Amino acid sequence: MNKTIFPVKEKINTREHYLKVKQYLPPAKIAGGILYHRGGTTHTRDDTDVELDFRQESNFAYLSGVEAAGFHIVIVLETDTIYLVRPDIPKMEQLWKGIPEPDAALLERYSVDHILLDTQLKQFLHHLEPTVILTLDITNIDHDIYIPIAFEKRINRDHLKAAIHEARLIKFPWEISLLRYAAQMSSHAHMSLMSYCGQKYRQGQRINEAELEARFRWICSKNGLSRQCYIPIIASGPRAAVLHYTNNDKLIPNNQHALVLADAGGEYRCYGSDVTRTFPVSTRFSDEAKAIYDIVLKAQNAVLARLKPGVFWKDMHDLVVHILCNELVKIGILVGEEEELLQLGVYRAFYFHGNVGLDCHDVGGKDTNIMENTRKGFPLHLLQKPLDENMVITVEPGLYFNNVSIDAWTKNPDYKRYFDMEKIDQYRVIGGVRIEDTVLITRDGIENFTIAPKQTQDIEALMH
Amino acid sequence: MNKTIFPVKEKINTREHYLKVKQYLPPAKIAGGILYHRGGTTHTRDDTDVELDFRQESNFAYLSGVEAAGFHIVIVLETDTIYLVRPDIPKMEQLWKGIPEPDAALLERYSVDHILLDTQLKQFLHHLEPTVILTLDITNIDHDIYIPIAFEKRINRDHLKAAIHEARLIKFPWEISLLRYAAQMSSHAHMSLMSYCGQKYRQGQRINEAELEARFRWICSKNGLSRQCYIPIIASGPRAAVLHYTNNDKLIPNNQHALVLADAGGEYRCYGSDVTRTFPVSTRFSDEAKAIYDIVLKAQNAVLARLKPGVFWKDMHDLVVHILCNELVKIGILVGEEEELLQLGVYRAFYFHGNVGLDCHDVGGKDTNIMENTRKGFPLHLLQKPLDENMVITVEPGLYFNNVSIDAWTKNPDYKRYFDMEKIDQYRVIGGVRIEDTVLITRDGIENFTIAPKQTQDIEALMH
Repeated sequence: MNKTIFPVKEKINTREHYLKVKQYLPPAKIAGGILYHRGGTTHTRDDTDVELDFRQESNFAYLSGVEAAGFHIVIVLETDTIYLVRPDIPKMEQLWKGIPEPDAALLERYSVDHILLDTQLKQFLHHLEPTVILTLDITNIDHDIYIPIAFEKRINRDHLKAAIHEARLIKFPWEISLLRYAAQMSSHAHMSLMSYCGQKYRQGQRINEAELEARFRWICSKNGLSRQCYIPIIASGPRAAVLHYTNNDKLIPNNQHALVLADAGGEYRCYGSDVTRTFPVSTRFSDEAKAIYDIVLKAQNAVLARLKPGVFWKDMHDLVVHILCNELVKIGILVGEEEELLQLGVYRAFYFHGNVGLDCHDVGGKDTNIMENTRKGFPLHLLQKPLDENMVITVEPGLYFNNVSIDAWTKNPDYKRYFDMEKIDQYRVIGGVRIEDTVLITRDGIENFTIAPKQTQDIEALMH
Repeated sequence: MNKTIFPVKEKINTREHYLKVKQYLPPAKIAGGILYHRGGTTHTRDDTDVELDFRQESNFAYLSGVEAAGFHIVIVLETDTIYLVRPDIPKMEQLWKGIPEPDAALLERYSVDHILLDTQLKQFLHHLEPTVILTLDITNIDHDIYIPIAFEKRINRDHLKAAIHEARLIKFPWEISLLRYAAQMSSHAHMSLMSYCGQKYRQGQRINEAELEARFRWICSKNGLSRQCYIPIIASGPRAAVLHYTNNDKLIPNNQHALVLADAGGEYRCYGSDVTRTFPVSTRFSDEAKAIYDIVLKAQNAVLARLKPGVFWKDMHDLVVHILCNELVKIGILVGEEEELLQLGVYRAFYFHGNVGLDCHDVGGKDTNIMENTRKGFPLHLLQKPLDENMVITVEPGLYFNNVSIDAWTKNPDYKRYFDMEKIDQYRVIGGVRIEDTVLITRDGIENFTIAPKQTQDIEALMH
């Protein structure tokens, strides 16, 4: 691992992030008000003493830059004075967990004004006597231990979250460098899966989905992406049609049609990536697989070519749907006039999720009722506002031969005449295809952070 | 990954495990009573839609064998009738998560009598009208949704947990095969770290602790150990003295004294392993490192040679302490008569944790106040009863040059005369050594599941 290639910057811009958040806070709350947020704490599994892997809560990571557990942040809004509150670790615990960093190092790295101990926090808040405490309502974070009961009525959970989400939507240059790095290294891990899979195929060795997941995590980790942004999806054969398949425990089929759909992205210092590649187990796309693959790629390329500030998500969604529908007619899976088919929404038998989502699903109308909206045909993660410079988004069209979905449409007497079952059976064997890139919206287009190949011939070349 | 070498058995002995647990339940509760336990459920991180990695709750895994989320188990104690309760997954969710296994497959694999849906559970319990519901008090598991309110007073959380823990202490042959496999594959991962580290040293390349953690996880995962039993400790240089160091993010020093202490074990189908190896970064132990290493190894070997049914944990602890103290006097770190030094406990400046713990810390007087007891000098995970055949335990002596600990002892005027500070400074640079094996207690001794080398010359050979 070459440490020097990591985009590490030791000084974190706590102040820059906070000042941006402050812009979105109601001015009436500033005088006498404070911002208070508690970072994540470590947990143990069930009733055991097995400590669970810790990952900082995202809003706290944004506000403070601190990736370790047990910290808090207090900011006096009027004076912009930032207090970082660190855990007071007893001497005996230091024996087991190590000596904490000195305050001087924390002050320097996080560019905050003061360091406090958590054991001093309650007293300190008493002393501050804030008129309002702007905070977040995050699961599993218990504020009561630290905020004096007398201040309970001054706690305001309405404004801070919206302000942070607004601030997080447009990325700072440093954030962009982290996101770029995460997507590029994840791309390398995807390329490694392709070449590894090809090598094993040529050696006549069968492999398990679990081995590909393990390899993906290893390539990410050794480049500093120690956590995954989400549970990887390594779906081979028919499982490629299951959008959130995460079992990753089946032997990979080695017939000529079989594909591996790998949807996985590593996370670097809490900044994620979201990448999907689909490749043929046998190192060559079958004719059917190539036909479906190229439709999805065409749809993705059409979107990528049009993305820029001012573009609306919904228009991109419509563009994808138009291309998919049109192409499905061409290869004979859908039967009828394109206009009517679009109107009826029958393409949703093969395409039932949104195509453009904000990276990590972090902001912009997060969907709390995924299934319900999918049923209604609404795409997920609907971003209402137009795209803007320095947003980071994903573009992820797909086509899926999912039996639950196909049955629901083709067995419905109102719709069955729009489907050619023989053609469906011919293509059903390939499972599904998704191609997903993480891209930055630039001044006049995009920078695609995702550098793993997408053309069928390039994938085949990498696998040989 | 060679699937065939995994000790997979598709039929799980739910009944065998349950009947063993039943032996430890109070007979008075059997008539009219049921056993009810809910398995783990999936969770999302903070207020995001990022699903966290799922790992079954251990007692549920023991009772049911089910590793997937959302299951329950109900057993009618009088008739030994076992009901496995599976989640009722709506059609639309199957679109995203896949079609669940048919009931026939579940009946066969888990050798239970009936399959129920969770949506039927409340009604079913009403119908059963149990006089007592024996269940567990496990964190994060909310029973109220499923147990009728009318039965609230019939819930008994006193007996089941003790019974399961008693049953889990002595392993079945199948459990032993899983534990053996987990420890053996973890041993291979440790060997891989040694040879990888040696290779990088010879190439003149510096590596980071994170890279070794990533490699350990990869070697485990590709052999089917998809989860770690605990957060790996990859502690290099001075960090080897910090017992629960898990940051694993520092560049590994490459001086002649530097050691890597790797405490990590993979988990196979919820059955874990716990292995520690300590090896020299420069591929050769320095004289000081070898001296300390050999003391620890001598202590471990002494214990391993004596373990068998009937042996008391406490006697093994005393044996280790005796050897460590004696040897620390020999090399001049401790000064005085061994008897007096033992009495004073001054060896605890360098040895401050227990040496024999039950695997995964799963049963046998689990210590809820680790720090307090460490301060008092009590070893951890104190097993009160004598060892017995088919227990699986770990043996993990260590010596640590931890500044917090050394300062506490050597700056105390009552104790400072027992320490030679010049000698301590000579050895302090090596950080710490721990050697830990997972072993099975057999009829007349042990089977050591841990097959990674321990002799300094064997480690050096592997690194060359």
